[in-house]
Amino acid sequence: MAINTNVLSGFMELLPHEQVEFDRIKNLIEETYQSFGFTPLDTPAIERSEVLLAKAGADINKQVYYTYNGSNVKEQDALALRFDLTVPLARYVANHINDLTFPFRRCHIAKVYRGERAQKGRYREFYQCDVDVVGRNGLSIHYDAELPAIIYQVFKKMDIGKFTIRVNNRKLLSGFFADLGANVDSAEVLRIIDKADKISHEKLLELFAEAGLDTAQSSRILSFTAIKGSVEEVLAGLAALNINNELFNEGFKELETVTSLMSKMGVDPNYFTIDLSIARGLDYYTGTVYETTLDDTPIGSICGGGRYDNLASAYTSEKLPGVGISIGLSRLFYQLRENGLINPTSKSIADVIVLPESEKNVAQAVEAAAAIRAAGLNVDIMFEDVKMNKKLAYVQKKEAPYLVVARTNDEGDNYLSLQYKDGDEVVKENLPLTYLVARIKP
Amino acid sequence: MAINTNVLSGFMELLPHEQVEFDRIKNLIEETYQSFGFTPLDTPAIERSEVLLAKAGADINKQVYYTYNGSNVKEQDALALRFDLTVPLARYVANHINDLTFPFRRCHIAKVYRGERAQKGRYREFYQCDVDVVGRNGLSIHYDAELPAIIYQVFKKMDIGKFTIRVNNRKLLSGFFADLGANVDSAEVLRIIDKADKISHEKLLELFAEAGLDTAQSSRILSFTAIKGSVEEVLAGLAALNINNELFNEGFKELETVTSLMSKMGVDPNYFTIDLSIARGLDYYTGTVYETTLDDTPIGSICGGGRYDNLASAYTSEKLPGVGISIGLSRLFYQLRENGLINPTSKSIADVIVLPESEKNVAQAVEAAAAIRAAGLNVDIMFEDVKMNKKLAYVQKKEAPYLVVARTNDEGDNYLSLQYKDGDEVVKENLPLTYLVARIKP
Repeated sequence: MAINTNVLSGFMELLPHEQVEFDRIKNLIEETYQSFGFTPLDTPAIERSEVLLAKAGADINKQVYYTYNGSNVKEQDALALRFDLTVPLARYVANHINDLTFPFRRCHIAKVYRGERAQKGRYREFYQCDVDVVGRNGLSIHYDAELPAIIYQVFKKMDIGKFTIRVNNRKLLSGFFADLGANVDSAEVLRIIDKADKISHEKLLELFAEAGLDTAQSSRILSFTAIKGSVEEVLAGLAALNINNELFNEGFKELETVTSLMSKMGVDPNYFTIDLSIARGLDYYTGTVYETTLDDTPIGSICGGGRYDNLASAYTSEKLPGVGISIGLSRLFYQLRENGLINPTSKSIADVIVLPESEKNVAQAVEAAAAIRAAGLNVDIMFEDVKMNKKLAYVQKKEAPYLVVARTNDEGDNYLSLQYKDGDEVVKENLPLTYLVARIKP
Repeated sequence: MAINTNVLSGFMELLPHEQVEFDRIKNLIEETYQSFGFTPLDTPAIERSEVLLAKAGADINKQVYYTYNGSNVKEQDALALRFDLTVPLARYVANHINDLTFPFRRCHIAKVYRGERAQKGRYREFYQCDVDVVGRNGLSIHYDAELPAIIYQVFKKMDIGKFTIRVNNRKLLSGFFADLGANVDSAEVLRIIDKADKISHEKLLELFAEAGLDTAQSSRILSFTAIKGSVEEVLAGLAALNINNELFNEGFKELETVTSLMSKMGVDPNYFTIDLSIARGLDYYTGTVYETTLDDTPIGSICGGGRYDNLASAYTSEKLPGVGISIGLSRLFYQLRENGLINPTSKSIADVIVLPESEKNVAQAVEAAAAIRAAGLNVDIMFEDVKMNKKLAYVQKKEAPYLVVARTNDEGDNYLSLQYKDGDEVVKENLPLTYLVARIKP
């Protein structure tokens, strides 16, 4: 009896009505990904440690959950739980390369595991919602525009307020740094820029100095990241820099192509911008990079991603460039709930609850439920033989939109009684089954 | 480069077109469960070992996957991956008991982990599709009829051929054994009966003798399990035994109620039967038990379950009776594929592939794709700037039902060309966008 049944610290577990809200969002993301032709993929949560850690930094070891079978305790470090969905994608593509059609479009919505310090909204098991397209030996720049167009659809449908998709290009940044001077370690400067909005101006200059930049160089960087405005204005500002560097020009052209195609794909220009301060810390991004933020709620980036040149270099000599975006759903869901940004369409999985008034109305209730279900609705029958007020307490707690009671009148005739809310008014009607189904049919 | 990228032995990993088939079945199961008002639940894959092993037998230790965080190697046996979804349900209900509405309806479709010997169709990571209703201090027998009615809907929709849902009742069996003689160890006899169709008649008698049964007792058991026929015939055969045992009579009455209500719930009488040889090995079943088999394909039971008196006795003193059914989906999917019983409605997640004829048709392709997508179809645009025959090879491999090519004619006017199969005939039409959308709208 002393067994601890609380959910483990750092793990998310929802009550039924919260789960309904969570699943609505998860399904919305998956359906949107699929509507762009991305096949949902499923890979094992357990991978060989050598696969997972092939390209990982030294610190990842502390985050990884190793796993072993009770009959095989000697191989405790051979297997581990995935900590993201990108490494399994790379392994999958390398392994099945000759069975896949390229460009390979896949989405993957699944749990990943990281032993991070537990804190509010940070989970050790959490859902990632990844969408990637991977090419073989090449991948058209147009895909870089399609990915944010998908994200635009996702967040519009999610109805969580005004958001901004921030686009940038690592080639543009690298080209700019090359032009700045040979002493510039662009990776280091990118890391500093990534932190820019979290630290003071003085601290920023200090970090630049530590990275070996002189005052003129720091100042050029600051005026570069200060270029802001509409997409057209930023592009004009970049052109006005008159930088003659091949990488810079390539990045500029890509940014121009991507933002132009995004508009054609129906992304409202008010919902995206070029943000030259976005670099994305991860080293493997090589071109377009993305981050999305909510305009009115300061909860940081709600999704991110970008273009990478070579997905699976740890596993194959084939060149596999790709572009992808990921939403960290568990954290996002937590943040949206905390900020009151989830407007549940329903708290109940059931659209209709059917109550038999007494045991002799069970057959009638069952028949009504089957007919309503056949019309496409989710129907819960409450079978417990308890007093009507207890049955109604069940109905009230479940918060289903419709209630149907199967009854018998004084003449011994069966009838169905329908009850639902129309605005603030509670409507009650006695209806024959076919009319009742027609009334509540979606 | 020497990293092994093959999927681990005993783990399932599908190619995209197989994944589409798998997901269709998984979604069909989930939607059917939901249509009966069961909320999909999600619990962590990682649980405390003490929770998982509270009621487990000694042999389960060899099957369990333990897990530990790389920074916390000392607690290697404190955490483990769930090996079923029933134990997590018990823990969940015990933990959240005051926040749940009873009878509590939940379904759970998720992966579980068992370090079983890898063999064809047996997986170490596999999907279980569980549906359970749990009462607090009591649960109406009517739920015992609803569960197989759900399963009937699932397998009818799955369209995998004629199947039979076999129903029995453990009280009826236990009462029968009590009536048989005080020396009968009913649990032992149940285990033997469970094996009956896998061993010879001689072996069966031998096992009965080993269990301490005399010839008369063995013979009564055999004539008992030989009662076969329609539901009415079996019930009549049982009544004719004239057994005057309270438990037997209770089980008989439950079986009568359950089978009668199943018919009223729309389960075709040809699709279910009372099978007195079904016992279900697991000790925790106490009343109704189920198994389902395919009539024309001998692949064993494709789902099973039953009524249990006390779900969470390891964690709480509250009495929580329930009834549930589980489908082992990964194994079932493997078996259905092996037996050619999966008739994929589509091998492609995309309904339509749009090809820009050349780079200057990209904007036109993107506009067409958005319009078709808005009509509810999944649309994949192939953006690679390669020769038309390469583009068409992509289309052919993806097997989407519709192809749309965005073209420009010699006069410089853009037009859309639609191509699809109508029976064996390939239809090609040039259509304005609105007509094209109307033609392929689902």
